[in-house]
Amino acid sequence: MRVKKELDRAKLVAAAMGQIPCDLSIENIRLVNVITGEIYPAAVDLLDGVIVRVRADGHAAEQPSAKIYDGKGRYLVPGCIDIHMHVESTMMTPENFGRAAIRCGTTSVFVDPHEIGNVLGIDGVKFMVDNAKASPVRQFNLAPSCLPSVPGAEGNGAVFGPAEIAALLETDGVYGIAEMMDFYNMIHNSEKMRGIADEGLKRDMLIQGHAPKLSGGAIAAYALAGPTDNHSIRTGWEVVENLHAGLYVDLQSSSLETSSMPKLLEGLKGMRYTDHVCLCNDDVHAKDLLETGHVNRLIKEVLQQGIDPMDAYRWATYNAARSARIEDLGAIAPGYLADLQLLDELDGRDPAAVFSEGRLVVENGELLDPPQNRPIPDTVLGSTVRVVGLDGPKSLRLAAPAGAGERVRVAVLDYDTPTARSDLFYEELPVKDGFVDIAGREDLCFVAVFNRHGAADHTVTVARNFYLKEGAMATTVSHDCHNLALCYKDPADGYLAAKTLIDCGGGFCTVHSGAVTGLLELPVAGLMSLLPLTELVPAIAKQEKATDEIFAKPGCMMKLALIALACTQNAVITDRGLFDGRTQKFYDQFPVEN
Amino acid sequence: MRVKKELDRAKLVAAAMGQIPCDLSIENIRLVNVITGEIYPAAVDLLDGVIVRVRADGHAAEQPSAKIYDGKGRYLVPGCIDIHMHVESTMMTPENFGRAAIRCGTTSVFVDPHEIGNVLGIDGVKFMVDNAKASPVRQFNLAPSCLPSVPGAEGNGAVFGPAEIAALLETDGVYGIAEMMDFYNMIHNSEKMRGIADEGLKRDMLIQGHAPKLSGGAIAAYALAGPTDNHSIRTGWEVVENLHAGLYVDLQSSSLETSSMPKLLEGLKGMRYTDHVCLCNDDVHAKDLLETGHVNRLIKEVLQQGIDPMDAYRWATYNAARSARIEDLGAIAPGYLADLQLLDELDGRDPAAVFSEGRLVVENGELLDPPQNRPIPDTVLGSTVRVVGLDGPKSLRLAAPAGAGERVRVAVLDYDTPTARSDLFYEELPVKDGFVDIAGREDLCFVAVFNRHGAADHTVTVARNFYLKEGAMATTVSHDCHNLALCYKDPADGYLAAKTLIDCGGGFCTVHSGAVTGLLELPVAGLMSLLPLTELVPAIAKQEKATDEIFAKPGCMMKLALIALACTQNAVITDRGLFDGRTQKFYDQFPVEN
Repeated sequence: MRVKKELDRAKLVAAAMGQIPCDLSIENIRLVNVITGEIYPAAVDLLDGVIVRVRADGHAAEQPSAKIYDGKGRYLVPGCIDIHMHVESTMMTPENFGRAAIRCGTTSVFVDPHEIGNVLGIDGVKFMVDNAKASPVRQFNLAPSCLPSVPGAEGNGAVFGPAEIAALLETDGVYGIAEMMDFYNMIHNSEKMRGIADEGLKRDMLIQGHAPKLSGGAIAAYALAGPTDNHSIRTGWEVVENLHAGLYVDLQSSSLETSSMPKLLEGLKGMRYTDHVCLCNDDVHAKDLLETGHVNRLIKEVLQQGIDPMDAYRWATYNAARSARIEDLGAIAPGYLADLQLLDELDGRDPAAVFSEGRLVVENGELLDPPQNRPIPDTVLGSTVRVVGLDGPKSLRLAAPAGAGERVRVAVLDYDTPTARSDLFYEELPVKDGFVDIAGREDLCFVAVFNRHGAADHTVTVARNFYLKEGAMATTVSHDCHNLALCYKDPADGYLAAKTLIDCGGGFCTVHSGAVTGLLELPVAGLMSLLPLTELVPAIAKQEKATDEIFAKPGCMMKLALIALACTQNAVITDRGLFDGRTQKFYDQFPVEN
Repeated sequence: MRVKKELDRAKLVAAAMGQIPCDLSIENIRLVNVITGEIYPAAVDLLDGVIVRVRADGHAAEQPSAKIYDGKGRYLVPGCIDIHMHVESTMMTPENFGRAAIRCGTTSVFVDPHEIGNVLGIDGVKFMVDNAKASPVRQFNLAPSCLPSVPGAEGNGAVFGPAEIAALLETDGVYGIAEMMDFYNMIHNSEKMRGIADEGLKRDMLIQGHAPKLSGGAIAAYALAGPTDNHSIRTGWEVVENLHAGLYVDLQSSSLETSSMPKLLEGLKGMRYTDHVCLCNDDVHAKDLLETGHVNRLIKEVLQQGIDPMDAYRWATYNAARSARIEDLGAIAPGYLADLQLLDELDGRDPAAVFSEGRLVVENGELLDPPQNRPIPDTVLGSTVRVVGLDGPKSLRLAAPAGAGERVRVAVLDYDTPTARSDLFYEELPVKDGFVDIAGREDLCFVAVFNRHGAADHTVTVARNFYLKEGAMATTVSHDCHNLALCYKDPADGYLAAKTLIDCGGGFCTVHSGAVTGLLELPVAGLMSLLPLTELVPAIAKQEKATDEIFAKPGCMMKLALIALACTQNAVITDRGLFDGRTQKFYDQFPVEN
């Protein structure tokens, strides 16, 4: 498939034949040909956003182009492509994300709007598509395949089955199905997941995968089920297994964990060809985007491991386009879209200039003539934290079962276990006035999750080793359903944090001694800020500082965002109860023997 | 796109998970992974014609397959793909061609039914599609894009414009547009060629190219016009130019000329990647198919030039499928069609066994259970030589212009010029009874072309250095319009040869002293025999022998088939007159000064 279907090919042909002038020539460049793996001096002529011709060095155009850009001997490389990411993780809107990532040389990304999908369903995806129209980075939005991630475990804002996926696949700007996370049901032929994959297959559209730690028959089954790539790989042997299963492997390094790139690259040793290798960020935080880059950060990482720069740039350009089956992206040749970057060195640095569909959009790090911001509809902005289960601080207390005495055995989520997973234990705790009492216990606090999609469901329990010293924190960024998550010593502080977020439309809030000490507003679906990158990063830093003040350890801000993540091997708390990711069952909060 | 759209994926998934048995396991093999470039011991499980799983050596299947095939330690390689060929050039029907080529390890071919299209139009293409259903080699028929090849130069059986191409593209079994030969009009934006390409582009279908000797702006223009590959390349610099223009390069070695493979491969030197390189036969004669092979012959050729076997097999498998944008062909991995060959060595030899969609179809050179022959409709068989301009031997005499005296200056086609091209000269020849007389001139004979598609057009002229000693020859294989072509000393012999072909439905016929001395019947559209390869090759040899007896040089049988080929840089004779391929204009047969 081609991104640009409505080309005036007769005009392009006439330009190639020298009968009419082109819009722009980029001259004096070293062309990086990712199709053949050569680098040679050349000039490139562009018209209507498309590459018309690559001229050999010194060969003048028959008709001079309207504009000439001097490449100053730099490398001309296709713009980079991130084959899988979640824009919401940057906490920026698609347009603001695009303005940040384009400076790094990224010109296309494949987006799973899974987070906003969980909040706003089809409307959320449509918002991402619309808002990305003002992004200088082309954003291929895909239909989130697993809403909710773990059916039954938690309440979210939308449930997608085959019908909803079909509706999205018929929506302009939706290019396929996003990571089919529910790999268990994929390889066990659940009717729903089979039905979702079939919607993509029958339209011959891209279906992306997510399949950690599968091997042998299981990874074969996953490939047969429909997906054509996998970015959820952490080891070299998985790289081998996935490539042998015919899948594209999207080498990932995200802001969420230590990079496993060295291990991943081990898997490629002994392979003559790496056509099925791409690069992706998955989740990248604003600070990392500002400080370390985007796809070019991944290039730096693989170069550090000794990968040849030609391979690295090819993974990030041509291979990604082939993985997505897009024929006019990812190379510099006639008919390809003129998404280009000029680089002083092939080392992952930010480009000296970026062209998007033939238009100069970045020069010397400056964004030129960004498109006007898109209006953000009311349905998305400031109105999505619909909590009905929270009725004052008392809702945040943990009532002991009727008939409990002075002490009660109660479920405690421990966040510092030897396995590095959160786990659940039962512990006997005092009961005061009918409520579980944690006073005097430095290692304990309360955690709670409240449905924020209009249902009354909520859960309160005790957490151990969450390292909250005092006060409270709340957030509406709470993967994957993005309910309202809280931690607190004092229910009154917790309530203030929650109330503050409800009023402002979501974000992160810290409270201490009855006063708000920090507020990061994320009014777009409770997930994204309206700030551009350079303002957002200090705002996040400020909120991190406020967080650090109430925690015994640094860097706890995002920890709260993961306490409800049911699609892991952890014990978690959701709006519906305490859930075991391993057995996919709920725990009793108070054991039966009580 | 996938060849097999209606897979029962739930069943395949269950098989991969070991819940149900597969149809077949090929065990004890060295798997040639053309995606990664590795070779490793493995076993492969197949179900419903599809690869379900590649098992590591020694890893038993949970459920034993219904059948086990012992690979005896051989290499398991994907079946070969010819990315461009004309089945008619083999003089076999598609089903018989398939039965021959499958033994060579070819499992898919991309077919331009250009020859039968010129005779029977859409019906001809539909016949090729239907007849190929009985072929063990999968045949992707494409819509012939240039009927006639040179509009106005000659009369053929069908004229294709955008409407006819559109009709074919909507026909089951037609996969795209075949080589867009009219490169001149492509790069000069003729409305018709633009319209034809647009029919393919708007359906996002494969468009194949044919663009000899283009470079710079012209090859860029050709790529922009729509085609995505080019097989009509004879030099290393064209390989470079085409790859730099983003096209796939189909390295060709045909039966029609000395192989230019060594020169072509020179073009690949210095390229790190060869993803855009494929292999094709274009035109392969039955004898060559029998004696030297098919795609495997090309592999032998490139190996002789020092190409790595892994690259060679990859060009013939994975790269070809990618060029055609087919995702379930060309590799051995879950979900790919089980088109496979077992090889003792990776050296281009015939395979020990071939599997087509999981079915063992060749073993030790023997074709197993070939499908029943398809019925051949009357419209195609024995009824296509519709000559109305031939009224006895007198039609084959060359009348001098009214008022000519005893001698006349007349156009003479010379077939042995210093440029190796046929060219036209004027020569003064005697006139006897009002007709040009060549009696006593050993170097001269007559050549004639009669429309055989129901029009009365015909041309008779004198040929020099055609090396016909005596008698006559006629053929209905006459590129590209496949009119009736004749050479003769005596019009009576010429008439007998022509009449014999008209009566039998076409082929090649030699006559000497008033008697038929050889007849190769090609009753299918006057182009193809009903014989299988092993019977056809001796039949052709017999006809070649009969031909050699009346010519002064050996190997002249196919020479007559090319005297009307207007899309070359030659002087040619068509049913409409004497035509200059360089200027695209007709010559006067008798110069004005006469």
